[in-house]
Formats: sequence, structure tokens, C-alpha cells
Amino acid sequence: MKKVSLGIAGLGTVAQGVLEIIANNRALIAQRTGIEFTVARVASRRPKPEVALAGAQFSTQLSDLYEDPEVDVVLELIGGETVAYAFMQAVVAAGKPLVTANKAVIAAHGNTLLSLRPDAAVRFEAAVAGAIPIIQAIQQGLVANRFEYVVGIINGTCNYILTAMQAQGAAFADALQTAQALGYAEADPTFDIEGIDAAHKLAILLSLAFDRPFNFDDVYVEGISEVTSADIEYADQLGYKIKHLGIARRTDQGLEARVHPTLVPKSQLLASVNDVLNAVLVKSDAAGATLYCGPGAGGAATASAVMADVVALASQESTPRYRPEAAQSELQMVPIESVQSAYYLRIPAQDQPGVFASVAKALSQHGISIEAAIQKEAQGGQALVDIVFLTQMTRELEMTAALAQVQNMPEVGGPLSRIRLETLD
Amino acid sequence: MKKVSLGIAGLGTVAQGVLEIIANNRALIAQRTGIEFTVARVASRRPKPEVALAGAQFSTQLSDLYEDPEVDVVLELIGGETVAYAFMQAVVAAGKPLVTANKAVIAAHGNTLLSLRPDAAVRFEAAVAGAIPIIQAIQQGLVANRFEYVVGIINGTCNYILTAMQAQGAAFADALQTAQALGYAEADPTFDIEGIDAAHKLAILLSLAFDRPFNFDDVYVEGISEVTSADIEYADQLGYKIKHLGIARRTDQGLEARVHPTLVPKSQLLASVNDVLNAVLVKSDAAGATLYCGPGAGGAATASAVMADVVALASQESTPRYRPEAAQSELQMVPIESVQSAYYLRIPAQDQPGVFASVAKALSQHGISIEAAIQKEAQGGQALVDIVFLTQMTRELEMTAALAQVQNMPEVGGPLSRIRLETLD
Repeated sequence: MKKVSLGIAGLGTVAQGVLEIIANNRALIAQRTGIEFTVARVASRRPKPEVALAGAQFSTQLSDLYEDPEVDVVLELIGGETVAYAFMQAVVAAGKPLVTANKAVIAAHGNTLLSLRPDAAVRFEAAVAGAIPIIQAIQQGLVANRFEYVVGIINGTCNYILTAMQAQGAAFADALQTAQALGYAEADPTFDIEGIDAAHKLAILLSLAFDRPFNFDDVYVEGISEVTSADIEYADQLGYKIKHLGIARRTDQGLEARVHPTLVPKSQLLASVNDVLNAVLVKSDAAGATLYCGPGAGGAATASAVMADVVALASQESTPRYRPEAAQSELQMVPIESVQSAYYLRIPAQDQPGVFASVAKALSQHGISIEAAIQKEAQGGQALVDIVFLTQMTRELEMTAALAQVQNMPEVGGPLSRIRLETLD
Repeated sequence: MKKVSLGIAGLGTVAQGVLEIIANNRALIAQRTGIEFTVARVASRRPKPEVALAGAQFSTQLSDLYEDPEVDVVLELIGGETVAYAFMQAVVAAGKPLVTANKAVIAAHGNTLLSLRPDAAVRFEAAVAGAIPIIQAIQQGLVANRFEYVVGIINGTCNYILTAMQAQGAAFADALQTAQALGYAEADPTFDIEGIDAAHKLAILLSLAFDRPFNFDDVYVEGISEVTSADIEYADQLGYKIKHLGIARRTDQGLEARVHPTLVPKSQLLASVNDVLNAVLVKSDAAGATLYCGPGAGGAATASAVMADVVALASQESTPRYRPEAAQSELQMVPIESVQSAYYLRIPAQDQPGVFASVAKALSQHGISIEAAIQKEAQGGQALVDIVFLTQMTRELEMTAALAQVQNMPEVGGPLSRIRLETLD
């Protein structure tokens, strides 16, 4: 039987997940693939004596992994950006096949990394949506399709927080605290809740689906820290859930790439993807709309995707079909100002006759049509009441101008909310 | 650029879908894969002058496809069993790579077909769940996982009918008629509504996930023709939808494989997969629960899956990893009598004091515990009222015995309903 030895950089949860899969399922994988996988080396700055290394040699030198002729495939599972990127370059330069879960490095430096050698073999299924084989679905299962959109819940922390706000009526800060207590959010949660992590993943999906070089700067980013429980409640009354989506879409204007909180109709499956789950909805010309859902993080789940890449490389199945130098697309990126969207608007205003009409008129002056509205009665002694609108499709540019005008109206008090709405049809 | 020529057997909707993909996306696929695909030959018993053949030669002789040295990959898209199977054997014997959408032939004859030559290259992604790359997910994306279950809505006709019954309160016969009018059900719908088609697909998923030779007879089959709109309404009141599921599951006893109507909690995504959509939920040790959803039929959608296989074979990427002669599993099949399940029971009984208690006692005598119950008041003049139970987990054997006893009770009238319930946790 063919034998393939792995060299693993890192000893965190994903690396431990890989070690566990090899320990538990080695015979099963060998039966399915005809290949017996062993771990020859593990390298990490700090040893962790509590982790069973299954006979692998341990070292604190990352370079041992690509210098060891016995290592056939190198797994970069250390995370972070600078050290990881330098290491990954060295692995590729040494001619070793590389598997990584590092979305930040692929989104920012993927073009360089994949072009270092003509035979560079780099795979990164685990970089997007954890256990879900979404990259494989786009590159292989749907290879014959022209893509219309790729829309995903691709950050579990945001999805957990929004789900908790929805289920318990919790405020953002409280839901964040719960997420931190449960280990679903970091002590410094900025990367997740401000949408950077989702934007890294969307940049990767964008490139693969629309045949373009990786470009993180193509992605417009908003996080969820401005979403209030009042917004979630109103959205609910109107038949929507608020989800943090990454959206890459072909339009008549070109390509949109954006990450932001979004109203999604409850009738859409995406609206029911809750807690830390991830899901990606792909629409393409032949296959139609297909949805992929599962755990987006966690050691074992991410390790499952890493091992899929390991098996593919070890079977010499296809170096990844995505080659930045060959990637070409006639499509232009659409700047966020030109993006068309429907909107949810919440406008706190004084409870006086005619205010509703003046706000509606201001919107209409900017060409914005109203699809639905809620106007609440004032509760005893309350100075401001919320006026809620769902609008028809509007350009970002006009919406921004209209809201600047509305915000300055004397009858309007307090910051207003605007959240985009997608029907995903 | 590498050129690969296809030979297509059949001129139905799937074959037309493949011709359209090649016509529309040839350049895009070439850019992604480095391979230019053309159709060299199409063979079908009857010519269809209205179908554009994109320069392919037409013949009425299927044998022209595997005898033509210019044909690199043969696509079997004629459907049916006898003629298709004979043709597929000839293609494999001739040493041509074969792509098929034929679930019946794979489920019944896959072992023979894949063993005809040691280098037999046969792929069948389109045979299960249309556009959804579920076979690829199981064989590649989740290759390092031990599977716990594969549960799917894998017949669009059944799902359409059950959805219509749910949404409109329609009777089965009326929903079937609508499905026929819309082209979602055949004039003779037996194959779909009695579960045979779903069983073919489940037999394939079972083999791939649990590493066993194909064996259609392993699958227990029930259709949906006995489901009433009353059942759907009661299930709804209790928080469930009724779906026609294919279930392949590892238990302590062994492997279960069964196709039948099933209550699914509304909180499960599967419960929201409606109309003709298909979905497959896979639970495995490392990846956890992942869900794959999309169109299960239709020319273009099925052609998308066919083309994924064509690209894989043309890239010489991996002849399929599934080899019947290597497939081995320590798992025994569980006969349906030994399968454990929770149940929904609807028992029409006379509206007399003590009937509810006698039925509950009869169940209890067979070791069946009750989880929830609904007892309706009799409407004026109604002789029988429905007693509805949800039971805890029970063996099929005990349930069958208990229901035989209940059906013979003098207070019970009319046929009773029993439908299995899955919480999918």
C-alpha cells in the first residue's frame, strides 16, 4: 500500500483534530483511498505534552517540516499572518505540497503564493466555512457552471450573536459576552464582529467563482456591532431574519462583493441557519440554487476539510484548478456606492402629525420607493417613535444622500438604522 | 489546449442540458480546466431535428459511440434499465470512460459494471440528487470521516406532493394530479410515489458512505400514497412536517437503510426543504452534520452533475475511489423489524369514555411509551374521533404487534396511521 507522511505546523485545535482523524480513521481512509497516512513530524513553538503525537517527531523548528525528505505533504495550521506566510512560501519554494486553513494569508497573498513555482500545489478547503466542502463544490461539482452569486453565512461568531439576539431579545453587548464565555468569540472580537474574517473568506469565494485573482480590497465590509435588538424585532414582524452575509454577485454592472448585516426572508433556508453554523448558497446557470451548510469552525470539523485536501494531493488528483495567472474575467468590480439593494430603515422621530409623510417625501425625492412600513404608537411620555420602512431596490449612493437629509430633519432624533435586505431569488 | 470529445447516448432533457452547457460555457470551462470539450457524436433511437447538435454527428446506433476512436468519454443519458445496462457494459468493455445519470442501473448492477475491467472508469454523480454534488461530498470532501448517517429528501415528486398537501390542505390524489399537470410526476407515478426511485438513490448513498457493495435489496421501501392530509395537519400541530426520507444509518445493531414518510421537527433545516427540491443531511465523526440542498432533477441541473464527472474523468483526476471489490464493512444490515424509531400514530376510535386509556394500555403492554398525545372532541354526530400519539423509541416488531392488537379493539374503527418520526440529532 502507498504510504504518505504528513508534516504538521502547529499544535492548536485543528492540528489536534488532524492527529485524531489519523489515529481513529487511518484504516478506513486507507481502505477508501489505497493510501496509508502517517504523521512524520509536528512542529510548534511550544511543545504540548498533553497532545498524543502518534509517533511523530516533535520539533520547535518549522523549517524541519519542509527540509525533512520524509515529509510528503505539509499542513500549515498555525494561523496568524506574518509567520505563517513566510513559512508557506518556504514550503512551496521547497517543492512540497501544502495544505492550509489560513484564510487571511490566502486572501492577502494567495496570488504570490500560488505563483511561486509553476507546479505549486496548494489547497485551502478549510480556509472557508470549516467542514463544508464549498471550495470543492465550486471548483469541481459546479465546474461547468457560470455563477450568478455566492452568498454565505461565513462567520460563526456573528451568526451566534445575531441568533442569540433574535432568540432571547438580548442586546448586542450581552450576546457578545455570552459568545465569549462559550468560546465562540475571542477576547478581542474585532476580527469577527467587524466582518474582517468573513471578508477574507468572501474574497476567496469571489476569486474561485468568478475566475479572478485574489483581492481582499475588492470586498466592502460592515460588521454587526450596530445591529440593535429593536432592528431584529422589527425585521421579525416583517417576516425577516437579520443575518451577517458575505455576498459576491454578478450584476449587469459587474461584480459586487460585500459583507454586511442583511435581512433575509424567513422562507429562505439561509434564514434558518442558526447559532455557529455556516452556510453558503450558490446560484449558477445550470445547477440553479444549491446550498451547503455545516459547522464553520472547530478542530475536528476544520480537520475534516484539511484531510480532504491531503487526500486529494496525495492521490495526485488535480493540483488545484485555480491558477491566478490564468484567472481572467471580463467582469468589473462594482463600487459599493453603485450597488442596488432593498433596505430596511428605522427612523426614530417625534410623534407629531405629518412626520411620517415628510420622511416618506424625503426618500421619494431621492427616487426611493417604499415597499412596506410600520408606524408605532407612542408609549406614554415617549418623545420619539420608530418609523420603519422596507424600500424597493435603490442605489447605495441615493440611499446615503436621502438618509443624510432625513437625519438632519428637525423631527428626527437619535441615530437611524439602515440594513440591506436580500430576497435571494 | 487539450481537447476532449464526448459521445452522448440519448436526446432527452439531460442530454439537451449537456449540449447547452457545452454551447454556452465551453470557453469558461476551458479557462478553468485547461480542457476544451466538444461533442463528437450523439446517438438516439429517434432523431430530434429541433435539438441543436453543435456540429456533432448523429446516429441511431448506440454502438457508434464506443466504436468511434474520436470519442474520449461516453455519456449514458438514455435512462431505463435493460438497454441502458447492456450499452454501459459495452462502453466499459471497450475501455471508454463512462458517465451516467442512471440510478436504477448503478443500484442494481453497479458491482458488475465497475468490475468489468480493472481500469473501469465509471462516474455517476448525476444519479443521486441531481445538481447537488453529494457523491463528491461523501467520497472526497468527507473522505476522512466515519459516517453516522446519510438522510435525504431524494425524490422531488414525493416532496412536491407532500409540500402541496401541507400548504393547501390538499388530499394526496389531488396533489398528485397537480404534480402530473406540472410535469413533476409521470403519467404512471408508481416509481416515484411508492419510493422505488428514492430507494435506488439511497442504495447508492449507502454503499458509498458505508463502504459496501451496491445492494438494492438492502433498502426497506414505503411510499407516500398512504399519507393523509389529516396526518399532515396533526403533525403540524405537534411541531413537525412530514417528509419522504431515505435514511441510511449506523446503529449499535448495524446498518439501517429505509425509505418512508417521516415526521421531521420544524426546527430542522430538512423540514423547510420544499417543493421539488432535494436535500441530503450527512452526519460524520469529524465534520459533524453537513447539509447539501438543491434541484434534484431537471435537464440543466442534472447536466451540471454530468459535466462535473466529465471534467473529472477528462482531467484523469481519480477514477472513482469506490471499488466494489475493495468495499468492505464490518457492519451488518439491520432488518426493518429491528429498527428503533419514534412514531406518530393516528387511531380513529369511538368517542366513548375509557377508549384513550385502553389504547394507551395496549401500547404499554408492548413496551411502547407515549411522548405526546392529542385527543379531539367529537364534532356533532361524528362516530369516530382521532386519537393521536407521538411515541418514544420503539422497535418496529413491537409496534407492529401493538398496532395489530389496537386495530382489533372493538372501539377502534377505520384504518390507523403510523408514520416514523426522526429528530435527527
